[in-house]
Amino acid sequence: MTIDPDIRRFVESARVAHLATASADGDPHVVAVTFVLIDGDIFIAIDEKAKTTTRLRRVTNIVQNPRATLLVDVYDDNWSKLGWAMLRGTAEVIMPGDDITPRRDEILAELRAKYHQYHEHNLAGRPLIRLSVERVTSW
Amino acid sequence: MTIDPDIRRFVESARVAHLATASADGDPHVVAVTFVLIDGDIFIAIDEKAKTTTRLRRVTNIVQNPRATLLVDVYDDNWSKLGWAMLRGTAEVIMPGDDITPRRDEILAELRAKYHQYHEHNLAGRPLIRLSVERVTSW
Repeated sequence: MTIDPDIRRFVESARVAHLATASADGDPHVVAVTFVLIDGDIFIAIDEKAKTTTRLRRVTNIVQNPRATLLVDVYDDNWSKLGWAMLRGTAEVIMPGDDITPRRDEILAELRAKYHQYHEHNLAGRPLIRLSVERVTSW
Repeated sequence: MTIDPDIRRFVESARVAHLATASADGDPHVVAVTFVLIDGDIFIAIDEKAKTTTRLRRVTNIVQNPRATLLVDVYDDNWSKLGWAMLRGTAEVIMPGDDITPRRDEILAELRAKYHQYHEHNLAGRPLIRLSVERVTSW
């Protein structure tokens, strides 16, 4: 989907967001994630080897139940300055070698451009999460 | 449950946390919340009148499905400083007039002591969310 430019800027400016998933039987889970927004998709790196990834709750949840919600928010003790954007959609786990659009190397380049830390963390051979955004709400 | 003192201090020091819930059919949701920790329970104020509360997704989710997860985390671009505590348990919506332990006025006093903003926001007549913590994990 096309994301409103103001919301897009707000989302892109955030260094961290919170990803909520739920197991097949509805047990909710939330983790802090680093991410990039490319067109209408959120991409999240998983800093674990592919073979240990299956132990991560966010991954097992997405495999069982692809519904996911990403929240980007700014807290301020001046509550008139609170702001958030909620991006809801369908998530999938992208394994190394999967043929995807945009290309994996483009996604990794965006992640490394936003987070210099990914120059030291080896993302080759690591899975990614893609959240295809379908609904956006904000305040 | 009894929460480890170091985790307790970390949780109590946070101004904001993220509450994940899911609908009966497993659609996950996450919101930023203010909260206090009293013994083994998290209390979250709802800044809405009781009769409009039923429109809030966090409330309809908890009524449908009481499983909830609260994440307290600190982001730092120095990733060696990242920290989080995840509190999982059972949530319920407490309506004004419900007979509960601790007493409602004690909970509101704790919320006002932590957040001066609640001196201006009228919490009387507002529902609360209680998350009874059953499992804690942290990093």
